[in-house]
Amino acid sequence: MQLLNEYKKVRDLSVTICQPLKTEDYVVQPVVDVSPPKWHLGHTTWFFETFLLVPHCAGYQVFDADYNFVFNSYYESVGKRVIRTDRGNLSRPSVEDIYSYRNYVDAAMEQWLLEELSEELQQLLILGLNHEEQHQELLYTDIKYILGHNPLMPAYGNRPQGAASVAAEPKTGISVKEGVYEIGYAGNGFCFDNEHARHKVYLQNFTIQSAPETNAGYLAFIESGGYNDFRYWHAEGWDWVRNHQVQAPLYWHQLNGQWMYYTWEGLQPLAMNEPVAHVSYYEAAAYAAWKGMRLPTEFEWEIAAQQFNWGQRWEWTESAYLPYPGFVKAPGAIGEYNGKFMVSQMVLRGASEVTPPGHSRITYRNFFHPHLRWQFTGIRLAR
Amino acid sequence: MQLLNEYKKVRDLSVTICQPLKTEDYVVQPVVDVSPPKWHLGHTTWFFETFLLVPHCAGYQVFDADYNFVFNSYYESVGKRVIRTDRGNLSRPSVEDIYSYRNYVDAAMEQWLLEELSEELQQLLILGLNHEEQHQELLYTDIKYILGHNPLMPAYGNRPQGAASVAAEPKTGISVKEGVYEIGYAGNGFCFDNEHARHKVYLQNFTIQSAPETNAGYLAFIESGGYNDFRYWHAEGWDWVRNHQVQAPLYWHQLNGQWMYYTWEGLQPLAMNEPVAHVSYYEAAAYAAWKGMRLPTEFEWEIAAQQFNWGQRWEWTESAYLPYPGFVKAPGAIGEYNGKFMVSQMVLRGASEVTPPGHSRITYRNFFHPHLRWQFTGIRLAR
Amino acid sequence: MQLLNEYKKVRDLSVTICQPLKTEDYVVQPVVDVSPPKWHLGHTTWFFETFLLVPHCAGYQVFDADYNFVFNSYYESVGKRVIRTDRGNLSRPSVEDIYSYRNYVDAAMEQWLLEELSEELQQLLILGLNHEEQHQELLYTDIKYILGHNPLMPAYGNRPQGAASVAAEPKTGISVKEGVYEIGYAGNGFCFDNEHARHKVYLQNFTIQSAPETNAGYLAFIESGGYNDFRYWHAEGWDWVRNHQVQAPLYWHQLNGQWMYYTWEGLQPLAMNEPVAHVSYYEAAAYAAWKGMRLPTEFEWEIAAQQFNWGQRWEWTESAYLPYPGFVKAPGAIGEYNGKFMVSQMVLRGASEVTPPGHSRITYRNFFHPHLRWQFTGIRLAR
Amino acid sequence: MQLLNEYKKVRDLSVTICQPLKTEDYVVQPVVDVSPPKWHLGHTTWFFETFLLVPHCAGYQVFDADYNFVFNSYYESVGKRVIRTDRGNLSRPSVEDIYSYRNYVDAAMEQWLLEELSEELQQLLILGLNHEEQHQELLYTDIKYILGHNPLMPAYGNRPQGAASVAAEPKTGISVKEGVYEIGYAGNGFCFDNEHARHKVYLQNFTIQSAPETNAGYLAFIESGGYNDFRYWHAEGWDWVRNHQVQAPLYWHQLNGQWMYYTWEGLQPLAMNEPVAHVSYYEAAAYAAWKGMRLPTEFEWEIAAQQFNWGQRWEWTESAYLPYPGFVKAPGAIGEYNGKFMVSQMVLRGASEVTPPGHSRITYRNFFHPHLRWQFTGIRLAR
Repeated sequence: MQLLNEYKKVRDLSVTICQPLKTEDYVVQPVVDVSPPKWHLGHTTWFFETFLLVPHCAGYQVFDADYNFVFNSYYESVGKRVIRTDRGNLSRPSVEDIYSYRNYVDAAMEQWLLEELSEELQQLLILGLNHEEQHQELLYTDIKYILGHNPLMPAYGNRPQGAASVAAEPKTGISVKEGVYEIGYAGNGFCFDNEHARHKVYLQNFTIQSAPETNAGYLAFIESGGYNDFRYWHAEGWDWVRNHQVQAPLYWHQLNGQWMYYTWEGLQPLAMNEPVAHVSYYEAAAYAAWKGMRLPTEFEWEIAAQQFNWGQRWEWTESAYLPYPGFVKAPGAIGEYNGKFMVSQMVLRGASEVTPPGHSRITYRNFFHPHLRWQFTGIRLAR
Repeated sequence: MQLLNEYKKVRDLSVTICQPLKTEDYVVQPVVDVSPPKWHLGHTTWFFETFLLVPHCAGYQVFDADYNFVFNSYYESVGKRVIRTDRGNLSRPSVEDIYSYRNYVDAAMEQWLLEELSEELQQLLILGLNHEEQHQELLYTDIKYILGHNPLMPAYGNRPQGAASVAAEPKTGISVKEGVYEIGYAGNGFCFDNEHARHKVYLQNFTIQSAPETNAGYLAFIESGGYNDFRYWHAEGWDWVRNHQVQAPLYWHQLNGQWMYYTWEGLQPLAMNEPVAHVSYYEAAAYAAWKGMRLPTEFEWEIAAQQFNWGQRWEWTESAYLPYPGFVKAPGAIGEYNGKFMVSQMVLRGASEVTPPGHSRITYRNFFHPHLRWQFTGIRLAR
Repeated sequence: MQLLNEYKKVRDLSVTICQPLKTEDYVVQPVVDVSPPKWHLGHTTWFFETFLLVPHCAGYQVFDADYNFVFNSYYESVGKRVIRTDRGNLSRPSVEDIYSYRNYVDAAMEQWLLEELSEELQQLLILGLNHEEQHQELLYTDIKYILGHNPLMPAYGNRPQGAASVAAEPKTGISVKEGVYEIGYAGNGFCFDNEHARHKVYLQNFTIQSAPETNAGYLAFIESGGYNDFRYWHAEGWDWVRNHQVQAPLYWHQLNGQWMYYTWEGLQPLAMNEPVAHVSYYEAAAYAAWKGMRLPTEFEWEIAAQQFNWGQRWEWTESAYLPYPGFVKAPGAIGEYNGKFMVSQMVLRGASEVTPPGHSRITYRNFFHPHLRWQFTGIRLAR
Repeated sequence: MQLLNEYKKVRDLSVTICQPLKTEDYVVQPVVDVSPPKWHLGHTTWFFETFLLVPHCAGYQVFDADYNFVFNSYYESVGKRVIRTDRGNLSRPSVEDIYSYRNYVDAAMEQWLLEELSEELQQLLILGLNHEEQHQELLYTDIKYILGHNPLMPAYGNRPQGAASVAAEPKTGISVKEGVYEIGYAGNGFCFDNEHARHKVYLQNFTIQSAPETNAGYLAFIESGGYNDFRYWHAEGWDWVRNHQVQAPLYWHQLNGQWMYYTWEGLQPLAMNEPVAHVSYYEAAAYAAWKGMRLPTEFEWEIAAQQFNWGQRWEWTESAYLPYPGFVKAPGAIGEYNGKFMVSQMVLRGASEVTPPGHSRITYRNFFHPHLRWQFTGIRLAR
């Protein structure tokens, strides 16, 4: 019964996020990393249909056999799929059809959830809910990208709940003593497979800032010529800056000498004491070098995070996304969830203003390629 | 008054063409050559607003100043514009907003057309109507592409009027004697600038087929291995075949050994006696070589066309799109209409099942790059 | 005997052209269109081996069976080949090996040419010699590119014979009356298949300049802002200008305010009264538009050329490279010589300072894609 | 005096490596990662000229001021440079000129090395020698690539010394107990900045193989369909396999059913008990997954390496290339040596059959992008 309520709550939130959209906003894919909102709505539904209802709910009839092709994201085990770059070319299924699909699957799920589920199926359901929560964050960031890259720059409307009061605190340095620490998820609740196995690491003495860097701080970096001085940049980052003529974080616009920032309410003057957002790993690392500091490792972050507030920005770490000692891939399609992405990406820790409430943990490992910045990515410094 | 009626008729047809669409179908741009239907609706409206109302209708207020950026296609004289590849990333203006834009401009135009127009403005208006008719054909072909490349392959619905009875006639050879002929538009009605100046050409003796090639004929080419024999192909065409693994015209699908064709009513068995459609210039030329024949020049076509039926397919010719002797570009933005495209494209003659009634002429010069085939392009042979 | 002497003379010239090179200069391929000089030396030799010695000279042993793969240029009929972009990656066969190959094939050819050849074989031999002469011009232009794009800008050394006295004459307009003219090769000597069939064309009245445009004239175009005014350019040319940031012909460099030009003797001040060279078709057409004139068609050029001097520059025409009426492709590999390139290219007429003496004809049709300019391409205006 | 002798020894080896080459082999760059041998010879010389002679040797005259542009590799601090992809387009400076450059610089260096050097300059000299040794390994691997990708597949000739007896030993598992270990360079000799600071890590219990995987072992992976089963691959690796149609390690060729391998002596039957070479990180990781094992981390490798033989292959680790705690970039151009590459690459440990004698260390951190495999990269398994 608790699972049923949880299911309803999570499923409702996805619909709520899309509520301010026009039908057209559900359809487009301006860059490969940004999926159309209607695709997210369909894909999260497909997850429950494919991994729970079809194999485990007797008598369930799939809503539309073609949807597997349309809404499979990357599961090689589950057949062919629309390649990612083509998602924005699909006018059908229509938004209305996808809402019908959601309703159909929800009805079946809610019926099925009245039954007693095995421990294993409960785990799978909870994975599905966490999966949908991940896509809720993507819904927010993808919608922001779609609207914020439209020449008309329309507002999304109401601020997401978590974005209501984003502001930086005063910063102090927190010192941690060297020694052996334990890393990884330890409790009995849900976590992703990449948070296992909990294991010991040795940390050296380090100091970490109690708060993330602000727009004001980042602006000082820009104004001191940070984007034009190769010494602060990784070689690959420097190429990225020049090839894409990057001169500021995403969504920053300089109009008549004033810095503006595209927000949920449209273009606004840049709020100086908000934590900087929408920077790539390259930018985060260059900023740190300019400050004579560095980014923390994900292990330093996890140990120190008990002593500071976090959750407004996903914080780039200096750690690559790699398996923990003892990491084991689950068999079957679910095993494709995390392990196969463990190369060429960097870990981010924390959460953001659009992470669904209760979704993150101190051991949560988010990960993106170093050039990406359409997420609410920010910077916390260490030394 | 006649112009007003003509204006209403043309403007209505664009709306009628889009009537079967869902909102989502208006938005997507699956390849660069295919524009979103809502873009066509806005762009044709922008033409009247920009070239007629703004400069010539006293007191006219533009609907939205940002729309010039969104709906300018390629007119360098008229300011910056959304680059072509980005048209499908624009969820706004919404379809509803664009219909409001149409209504607003139509109301202003219909009021303005009650006045006496100078000869020059009448010409400009007629150019605007012919421009919209060109986009009506593009609307059809772009809609076909959008729906026909969706994995669900939805039907468009009702057949366009011109597509109701497409079928090939028996073929005979029509012989034309060598000599001096006149080419280009001669009458007093409307024609595009590229149909001028009318001028003399010398044609050698030639024979041309009275009817275009059929699906049955083209299938024989496929089955004899035509796509795998370099001898029939231009070097550039052969590269195109191999790089894109082309094995049949666009919209042909071989399912369980049977050839199917995506039509206005969805996927159907290939109708053998319809004129073949959706072939590139490379394919048309290779087919001709396989038959031991060739494509006609645009001059041969124009002279011979008085002796045969045409209008179901745009027929590739062996002529490159070049200026006629005496061709003069109009000054200003209107001069960008045709002349600046006169390189690297091939001429097509005739009309197709989705050309608006009355839009084509025996002197009409359509043109596309040799690899394109999403138009209703076909083949007529000569020797 | 005359053929034997002609053979020796042509073969010697290729070696003479390469005489100033260092071994390293024979190897590189800085862009796809520029082949390594050693490749030209091998490929022209391969032509005689493959099309004459192997099929027609009893007892001939190929020099090295792998060379067919290395030196086949584009003959699909003659087996697999090194793709064009890879020619500059081949350090072997060494230059020394290729000269051995030349000597080996020359010895066999010279022996074989003592025999009586059938008319058909004589034709094939003459084709081989003309083929080598075409590659001699490419040798010059490719060597110029290799040296002229090296940061050290080394001189080639001695001027080619034809480049000794390149200078423009005073210009007058030559008028030609409208009427029916004959175009194409008429004599008994050698010509390429694309110069056939001789046929009638109808020309309108036109005027053509008696001399090509000079560097001084072209510089005026640059200084008046011609590269920054879209009105003069084809749409495709305008994209080319902006994507490649073109601001002058190839080999023009502005150093400390002075225009320099890379010549056979290295970088030199631009000679104002030389005919402009190394312009693309786009530039030629834009220049003509800026002058309020146009480029001649290849037919106009051929008829008028009897009344002016030509031969210092390949002159862009407004004609696309298409088959003449009655053009027939030869069967077999030789048929791949010209016909398969008859799409997307423009015709150039005349000859250049590096065309081998006696190689060109008034009916000769050279052809290149419109963006290419590493040949000695120039401009003659008409109206 | 010892430094002078060391200088001569290192400089001589570069020349010896190139001794079997033809002039042409020095010039080409078949892919971006492979530099022309003459470029290596020039670049290593430029290093001594730029960082030692010019700033520190009174009265030194640069050999040629243009060479800085030609031979700077990636030092942004030292001015403009030829972009990496263009190195193979440079026929000049000639091989002979570059040997003159080497002789000129060597004469100046040998004179200068007779003086007393400060400790700092001695360190810089030793860095220059280690730099040249790194390029000696690249010379070998780049030469192998140039010859091994030539359609004639010429032999290099004499085997490099280290390649004389490459063979696998019997394998056993070596177990290491969990606990705190020290990592990084500890001695007084030379090491690169990326081997600092020495620091503690906590390792879990692990087992590592005493010998690398063999060709026979890898062939079993191929024959069991490893390249066609996505379950063993990272998502990015699976894309790489399909996009490049990878079916075996680099230099493996299947001829008439037999597996051949391109060696220093040309194409030879695959030696089954040699350690597998020329695999990418993706292949190494997929092979490990197929075996139910994994790659060791670089820390595990460093601790365990005291118990096994290593040095025939660079062994991929599961560690990304990141700064050690306490890593500090040197100021100035030398600081660009390592730090700016610490993103998106994987660490390899060990050495290979072409690593100069004495060049590697147990703490040495080599690094490459995960798709690269033209180095002698191999696999050691752990669990």
